[in-house]
Amino acid sequence: MQRKSFSEMTCPIARTLELVGEWWSILILRDCFAGIRRFDDFQASLGIGANTLTRRLNALVEAGMLERRPYSAHPPRHDYVLTRRGRDFRPVLLALLAFGNNELTPEGETVVIVDSTTGAQVDPVVVDRRSGLPLMEPRFRLAPGPAAKGATRERLESGRHELLRPMPDPTDAGPAT
Amino acid sequence: MQRKSFSEMTCPIARTLELVGEWWSILILRDCFAGIRRFDDFQASLGIGANTLTRRLNALVEAGMLERRPYSAHPPRHDYVLTRRGRDFRPVLLALLAFGNNELTPEGETVVIVDSTTGAQVDPVVVDRRSGLPLMEPRFRLAPGPAAKGATRERLESGRHELLRPMPDPTDAGPAT
Repeated sequence: MQRKSFSEMTCPIARTLELVGEWWSILILRDCFAGIRRFDDFQASLGIGANTLTRRLNALVEAGMLERRPYSAHPPRHDYVLTRRGRDFRPVLLALLAFGNNELTPEGETVVIVDSTTGAQVDPVVVDRRSGLPLMEPRFRLAPGPAAKGATRERLESGRHELLRPMPDPTDAGPAT
Repeated sequence: MQRKSFSEMTCPIARTLELVGEWWSILILRDCFAGIRRFDDFQASLGIGANTLTRRLNALVEAGMLERRPYSAHPPRHDYVLTRRGRDFRPVLLALLAFGNNELTPEGETVVIVDSTTGAQVDPVVVDRRSGLPLMEPRFRLAPGPAAKGATRERLESGRHELLRPMPDPTDAGPAT
């Protein structure tokens, strides 16, 4: 990838992007949640070269998202399983899944979330765990944390941040794709 | 970026990754939610070259995530605003923010979500909009959608998918980073 390292950035979004490295890493994590654990199975699922896959798996192990677990001593073999940190990535995958389903499935959805007690399709929404209220309610806002400094703190204190505020709708029909 | 196109993949996660192209695009979207609209301000925020920024902004416009809006006729100038589709990307950013805050802020958080009526810090959780129940409840599962075919359908019908199931905890302390 042609890009600068994000490691000096303090933004938690930038740090997460740095950790997972590139798109293949996110698809590897997706496959882990689908039950895939072995090198050959990742390769078959993703259709990428062995060298690329080796690099991405090594990077995910180094990032603490996956760990190698031996499953055979003769010959020595290991598979890859999600660590606690890797499993904590689940909400990002759920958010990507929901966005893709809402925006990018003109031919119909290939994977949906259902409530098996009712058969109804589930519409995921992010809420405050304590109150159960959707994060888009006006009471919620971004604020500087204890480690915020300089421009980050000023920007968050200005109240201009719109990540948690409904925004005026510039165009209800986005450009055709 | 050195990677294959994901455009032939039907997975909504892969399609979303294809749409946003690379990490810079996600940070540009983040900055849009922070109120940034103009080329020079994106450049100052991200510290990237003008050519890279131009390419990423053009790709986001083409993807229907941003649109150009003129703000001056003499000289001709435009800024970049989020479309409806771009604003729908918000939950992905919130999920990345939460992950980064939980995992990658050893020195303390720089940005948090607070409930301004109580001052309490908010712990975001993904729930079913209808029932309000967390998606990790056993009643929720992934299922094949109307467009699912072949291996995708089989894998989803097998019930092995763990994206919505608590997993055995292989190692509560992931590798140190």
